[in-house]
Amino acid sequence: MNKYRPIEGMTVPRFADIATFFRLPIEKDPEKVDIGIIGVPWDAGTTNRAGARHGPREVRNASSLVRLYHPVSLKSPYDVKKVADLGDCPVNPADLQDTLKKIQIYYENIVKKNTLPISIGGDHLVSLPILRALGKNKPLAMFLFDSHTDTWDTYFGGFKYTHGTPFRRAIEENLIDPKKIVMLGIRGALYDPKDLDWAKEQGITIITIDEYQKMGLKETTQMINNIIGDSETYLTFDIDGIDPTFAPGTGTPEVGGFTVRESQNILRELNSINFIGADLVEVSPPFDLNNQTSLIAANIAFEILCLISKV
Amino acid sequence: MNKYRPIEGMTVPRFADIATFFRLPIEKDPEKVDIGIIGVPWDAGTTNRAGARHGPREVRNASSLVRLYHPVSLKSPYDVKKVADLGDCPVNPADLQDTLKKIQIYYENIVKKNTLPISIGGDHLVSLPILRALGKNKPLAMFLFDSHTDTWDTYFGGFKYTHGTPFRRAIEENLIDPKKIVMLGIRGALYDPKDLDWAKEQGITIITIDEYQKMGLKETTQMINNIIGDSETYLTFDIDGIDPTFAPGTGTPEVGGFTVRESQNILRELNSINFIGADLVEVSPPFDLNNQTSLIAANIAFEILCLISKV
Amino acid sequence: MNKYRPIEGMTVPRFADIATFFRLPIEKDPEKVDIGIIGVPWDAGTTNRAGARHGPREVRNASSLVRLYHPVSLKSPYDVKKVADLGDCPVNPADLQDTLKKIQIYYENIVKKNTLPISIGGDHLVSLPILRALGKNKPLAMFLFDSHTDTWDTYFGGFKYTHGTPFRRAIEENLIDPKKIVMLGIRGALYDPKDLDWAKEQGITIITIDEYQKMGLKETTQMINNIIGDSETYLTFDIDGIDPTFAPGTGTPEVGGFTVRESQNILRELNSINFIGADLVEVSPPFDLNNQTSLIAANIAFEILCLISKV
Amino acid sequence: MNKYRPIEGMTVPRFADIATFFRLPIEKDPEKVDIGIIGVPWDAGTTNRAGARHGPREVRNASSLVRLYHPVSLKSPYDVKKVADLGDCPVNPADLQDTLKKIQIYYENIVKKNTLPISIGGDHLVSLPILRALGKNKPLAMFLFDSHTDTWDTYFGGFKYTHGTPFRRAIEENLIDPKKIVMLGIRGALYDPKDLDWAKEQGITIITIDEYQKMGLKETTQMINNIIGDSETYLTFDIDGIDPTFAPGTGTPEVGGFTVRESQNILRELNSINFIGADLVEVSPPFDLNNQTSLIAANIAFEILCLISKV
Amino acid sequence: MNKYRPIEGMTVPRFADIATFFRLPIEKDPEKVDIGIIGVPWDAGTTNRAGARHGPREVRNASSLVRLYHPVSLKSPYDVKKVADLGDCPVNPADLQDTLKKIQIYYENIVKKNTLPISIGGDHLVSLPILRALGKNKPLAMFLFDSHTDTWDTYFGGFKYTHGTPFRRAIEENLIDPKKIVMLGIRGALYDPKDLDWAKEQGITIITIDEYQKMGLKETTQMINNIIGDSETYLTFDIDGIDPTFAPGTGTPEVGGFTVRESQNILRELNSINFIGADLVEVSPPFDLNNQTSLIAANIAFEILCLISKV
Amino acid sequence: MNKYRPIEGMTVPRFADIATFFRLPIEKDPEKVDIGIIGVPWDAGTTNRAGARHGPREVRNASSLVRLYHPVSLKSPYDVKKVADLGDCPVNPADLQDTLKKIQIYYENIVKKNTLPISIGGDHLVSLPILRALGKNKPLAMFLFDSHTDTWDTYFGGFKYTHGTPFRRAIEENLIDPKKIVMLGIRGALYDPKDLDWAKEQGITIITIDEYQKMGLKETTQMINNIIGDSETYLTFDIDGIDPTFAPGTGTPEVGGFTVRESQNILRELNSINFIGADLVEVSPPFDLNNQTSLIAANIAFEILCLISKV
Repeated sequence: MNKYRPIEGMTVPRFADIATFFRLPIEKDPEKVDIGIIGVPWDAGTTNRAGARHGPREVRNASSLVRLYHPVSLKSPYDVKKVADLGDCPVNPADLQDTLKKIQIYYENIVKKNTLPISIGGDHLVSLPILRALGKNKPLAMFLFDSHTDTWDTYFGGFKYTHGTPFRRAIEENLIDPKKIVMLGIRGALYDPKDLDWAKEQGITIITIDEYQKMGLKETTQMINNIIGDSETYLTFDIDGIDPTFAPGTGTPEVGGFTVRESQNILRELNSINFIGADLVEVSPPFDLNNQTSLIAANIAFEILCLISKV
Repeated sequence: MNKYRPIEGMTVPRFADIATFFRLPIEKDPEKVDIGIIGVPWDAGTTNRAGARHGPREVRNASSLVRLYHPVSLKSPYDVKKVADLGDCPVNPADLQDTLKKIQIYYENIVKKNTLPISIGGDHLVSLPILRALGKNKPLAMFLFDSHTDTWDTYFGGFKYTHGTPFRRAIEENLIDPKKIVMLGIRGALYDPKDLDWAKEQGITIITIDEYQKMGLKETTQMINNIIGDSETYLTFDIDGIDPTFAPGTGTPEVGGFTVRESQNILRELNSINFIGADLVEVSPPFDLNNQTSLIAANIAFEILCLISKV
Repeated sequence: MNKYRPIEGMTVPRFADIATFFRLPIEKDPEKVDIGIIGVPWDAGTTNRAGARHGPREVRNASSLVRLYHPVSLKSPYDVKKVADLGDCPVNPADLQDTLKKIQIYYENIVKKNTLPISIGGDHLVSLPILRALGKNKPLAMFLFDSHTDTWDTYFGGFKYTHGTPFRRAIEENLIDPKKIVMLGIRGALYDPKDLDWAKEQGITIITIDEYQKMGLKETTQMINNIIGDSETYLTFDIDGIDPTFAPGTGTPEVGGFTVRESQNILRELNSINFIGADLVEVSPPFDLNNQTSLIAANIAFEILCLISKV
Repeated sequence: MNKYRPIEGMTVPRFADIATFFRLPIEKDPEKVDIGIIGVPWDAGTTNRAGARHGPREVRNASSLVRLYHPVSLKSPYDVKKVADLGDCPVNPADLQDTLKKIQIYYENIVKKNTLPISIGGDHLVSLPILRALGKNKPLAMFLFDSHTDTWDTYFGGFKYTHGTPFRRAIEENLIDPKKIVMLGIRGALYDPKDLDWAKEQGITIITIDEYQKMGLKETTQMINNIIGDSETYLTFDIDGIDPTFAPGTGTPEVGGFTVRESQNILRELNSINFIGADLVEVSPPFDLNNQTSLIAANIAFEILCLISKV
Repeated sequence: MNKYRPIEGMTVPRFADIATFFRLPIEKDPEKVDIGIIGVPWDAGTTNRAGARHGPREVRNASSLVRLYHPVSLKSPYDVKKVADLGDCPVNPADLQDTLKKIQIYYENIVKKNTLPISIGGDHLVSLPILRALGKNKPLAMFLFDSHTDTWDTYFGGFKYTHGTPFRRAIEENLIDPKKIVMLGIRGALYDPKDLDWAKEQGITIITIDEYQKMGLKETTQMINNIIGDSETYLTFDIDGIDPTFAPGTGTPEVGGFTVRESQNILRELNSINFIGADLVEVSPPFDLNNQTSLIAANIAFEILCLISKV
Repeated sequence: MNKYRPIEGMTVPRFADIATFFRLPIEKDPEKVDIGIIGVPWDAGTTNRAGARHGPREVRNASSLVRLYHPVSLKSPYDVKKVADLGDCPVNPADLQDTLKKIQIYYENIVKKNTLPISIGGDHLVSLPILRALGKNKPLAMFLFDSHTDTWDTYFGGFKYTHGTPFRRAIEENLIDPKKIVMLGIRGALYDPKDLDWAKEQGITIITIDEYQKMGLKETTQMINNIIGDSETYLTFDIDGIDPTFAPGTGTPEVGGFTVRESQNILRELNSINFIGADLVEVSPPFDLNNQTSLIAANIAFEILCLISKV
């Protein structure tokens, strides 16, 4: 039997033993597994409140509560895939460019081993070096769940690398194909009325929270599925897409967001997309309450794991 | 005038005086009242995070904020029933079987005095000894509001009594009639794809949160009313049926649950059912924030009190 | 260019510098601006949990996160109005009547200078002296967003001035016109089945949360717009109208309230009303979690600023 | 056997049952007991952060953890005195003068019944009406444990009644004898270099925290005992005398205060004083952490109970 | 080079990677190491507030902050011993006797492999089955740092196994030698004036906190060293020996305890004792603040590791 | 009269109005004042837990509670110096070197205007660019209150600028004179037994917490005064020198530190030193409890202000 499965909660209580993602085995060699879950504990791209560096550890902790079978499909990723906790990607909290390189190198190895990565951030800038590894040969389609588009050009007088800029850089570097990008959940007051114009000009489809409210679940997810089609797709889930009352542990909270049920329902409608990698970012434990954001993140990560496992 | 009424908030401020349920008089003799509210401060059946032993005290504290008349019916239970705080049922935190006996004996006396009990837990295992007293002569119908069915067989190598097993035991002991049981709000990943099969085979009606979302309030509550009809019915409300963002103070949080408004609306549609007892369980103050779970519990307990009082 | 604008977050990080409302300039002379945002740090009218005296400071703090352009209209109040932080209104925490006078005098000067005031409370009793200044010459129409009507007569044996009585006093003093008052979101158990009768007899339109659920957004806001028409209108927003899970930092929480998205949607439908002043009250930081209530309040205050600026 | 004893923790677990002071019986008639413990849930005299109105309830809650015998003397007050929880004194949160009267009347009855009162506040202004009852016939000696002398004259332009003024009023009203007053623990920056002059001119002995550090426990308590001698003495313990790291739940925290061990040691050296009443004030649960201030207060109250019981 | 060393914080940031005790390797085979650190996540012996089941995980988390060399000796246990995280001992949260057996069996294997165990609890009852393994052949000397002696006979009507009884049982079972037991830090009100008599009659040396204050560090630790001499000794450190302001995360807080500096100083004076095993118990994360108790526990565990390593 | 004084708390309540340092006027021109208090909201040099970027705002907030006259000297800095809140120094959260430059330029202007700066950080790396401005012409003497020496060479593979390295850089750049540096309070386990060797070789006097315990207050402060003499001296106070139970809001907590009273006493003995600038760093509000660290920081900052004002 596949040894890359979680410890069973009916044998070892959920609060017991060392916390790994979903209580999975630790496996340092990505080649041995189909899907690797990776922590990326780094937040030096954050422009407001830092803390996402502590995200991977607390999501590991909370993920002990997630069981093995999806409650709607009644299927389990662990029945069809070998999945392990690969540990944390190397980072340097004191040097941004050094970290971007370290992350990229780490993921190039993951790609080489044909392992599908699910990354737990870390701030949203970590998506850029991951995409440099995954989208190197051919630009990917992408689904972004977020309250911000993260396509600003520069901050604080010309600085190009922050958690508000990764997808502008990724498009400039041809890692993702703007025509096949959908950004869902965008909201909150703007710096400038033209904040979204650049993204739209590239061909990105932006669905604000207000537009979502008008279209509803079915129409919205139909639109996402249509745009992305069967392309190889990257899924990037910023926890701040969820309302900060539900997910307070994040650096740039925007009130009026998705409920957890809406978020789960949206992801479940995307199960025909060909996801080849994913990240879940911006979980910031210092601002969390009772670890509730980490618990939500762990449950969302399980939905993502099911999507990537196609169960 | 009925002396078994709350102290009025317009005379004594809500933060003042000793905290009893709804600011009701303390009455040790159940015979003197129609409805008794009882604390059951015990959580040794808990498999994950303990703390529900502290539930009764904090629900008492929060219940000071609940006024006397229902906002929709404009009626008050205190105009038609004598209601008191009966104090806490005896328990033994260090011996599970001793506690099951102590609770059963306590409730057998309640039954003998024809007092309708509303119990504030404690973990969900407390429902079992209560049902042993209330369902002794004839199996009851039951409505369970919960995220779990609590019908697992055993835990940790054959152990039969935990807060995950009470209703399996109660059915085996013929205390409740599975054909007249509805379980609403079930959700969360499963240990096994067959987790719900035993319950369904007994004839229990399970309505998952996903099925609720599809059916909506009216269709769901119609189904519950149809199944239960005019049977003598036990109401058991696990606070973890409500979304953990709303009610974080609980031991086994499952994200993506009911909002408080949905919960209130569901209960209000069940006002033709013949409830002869109820419990509200799994409020765990050590994991609560700002006592918000206790405040919700107090408001739900008031809805239940109105249901049992038929106002 | 208009100097009464916020510091830009792309230049000075949001966590930097002294916290003023929306990072606006401090301006002690109301005459210099079109709209003045004013703190009223006082809560001696509170009958349950005090703490709203700390509201203005924490709303200032949280408001640093609000940017300049409305996400739906893509317009900014700062492009059409001069707006400043006028500091705090004088109060006396140790003498209620002295404070009512101090507030009234302060706002009479605001009225004289033709400055439109947005006040951040403070408990709901602060609305009374503000209305004594704004409604002196002609009774105003009023929209109240709240879980309580605040029209009780007296408390604790005849005392007429608490945060539960301001609108009864304001009607008695002919400062507001009951026929043009709408109160939205009323809920929670009552002291007496006749609690709402006096208000209804005066001609006030009360829409409970239950009625809102039945009517929905469009019908409800249509009704509000119809009743108020083009009258000069005061907007008073009690943060406890929002569900306490979203906005826990308040003194008299009533479970089962509006979500933030509902609240935003309601306000946005009222953009044809002629608002000539507004307050946002009952934010109580000692009971807040993670400043989430203050953040919601800051975002609601921005919606109100847009309404008053007509952008 | 004396029925006015706590419920035993070896029978009923400490977290169980309704929270009364030290798990004592509730007794509404003061005549039946030797010592009555009374809540005074009122804080309208507070000039900075309110919240002490919630003190009595949380001290009751925490006091469940205090057992029956003093750890040094190995004696118990319950072996020599009848002690009960008398409930809360009537107050009016909306009218200061009305409350001062209500408290005075309540305590005049206590005095008439020859019951020794231990009062749990509430803010420090509650000492004034209590002293009006206890010191009516003859001015009392007094020991104040506090970080402030609470002898300011007026606040906010002439207002004479706040929690910063009670002992100035009490001396003016001849309720306490300044020559027999010791104030211990005074510290923190001052409004004016002459802040302490008035008190000293009356003959009050002020021992600042710095002076305490120099003199040490023995010399300090010797001085207190010498000054007070065998006079009938009132003990007033402001929880803010203890360092706010230990006791954060208070309205006017002054850093650099006594540890709990120092506080216990000081009280234990005063066991020859003839205390005829006491209060413990300024416990403010909204600013507490983990109820640690309430737990300290409960333990200090037990020391005081032992002092008054002379065990 | 010894591979059983922590990951270096100068290479991998302290917040990164999976949390093990002191960032040590996970090693399931005790034979491979000299000293094994073991979690015992179980608290069913708790009579008041549960939660110590979560202790091992949070102490692991906090221990990332502890570096490698002792600040006074400038030596490191990792230079002289092979040390690893052995994971958690098996437990059964739903059956006390089953757990006592599981723990004993686990430690019998540890003893057989000649590995010195440092156990992180869990409540204090876990010391009993550990001593059943370690003291089987010859009763051990013991140093207890605690606010309670944990030598009560029974609870709740005759129940013999709780966290208040382990050392009574251990003496009855001849696992420890009462003449060579020192209990330090005992304090808090008592159930009965004779609470300590049984222990003293067995020959146990009890040093209360008051006695410690009189004797001081040197005299106290000299006494401990004299009594224990060169016997094989078990060290059991109950975190509630430390003052609950410093270490609030525990189930039975007793105010007025040791500071952390006192605690460190005491342990450092015991470095000539022949410790052959140790536990650190009663860390209860649900009652902790900011993980400060876990951080203290991690630092105390490092002192213990240095004692056992004789560095 | 000097207008650069705090608003008086007897007129405007302490919770009222916009939060500036000590309620001082905001003054953007340093030339107008003798002493300027400056926020430096930046923490990108942090190697463990970030958050000190939020320090200045919360210290401003807490400083409202500090009155005007020193409790021991009975003197006030505001009677002898013009003091103002200069606002925050410019920073760039996304570029470390750019920030070092921005800070240096800002302080060069302060020096040019002969204003004495008291800086509220920010992490400890901010001391470096400040010293580049203050120590440019002649190396300064320095007193460091801290649990770490912050003289490591590099982190994470050669990176030279973090909050663990500022004083190594400052000595290399000849900004401070190692012979006239005293570092007090050093403690905590070490990365390497030689961690302190470099500093000692330069001639720095290091007084560990253990050495302080042995020497006591008088001997320690005598040593500091002797070493520093009458040199122009920089005072740098890392809040983590204080025990983390007292001051939990910091990034690298080391248990077993100074109490607040010890810290105050130490500073008060240094009042003959010629301080020409100071900073207080590492206050990290996301990890604070109840703002207690900010309150301590505000009180320490007042002590520092008195030292620099020579009152």
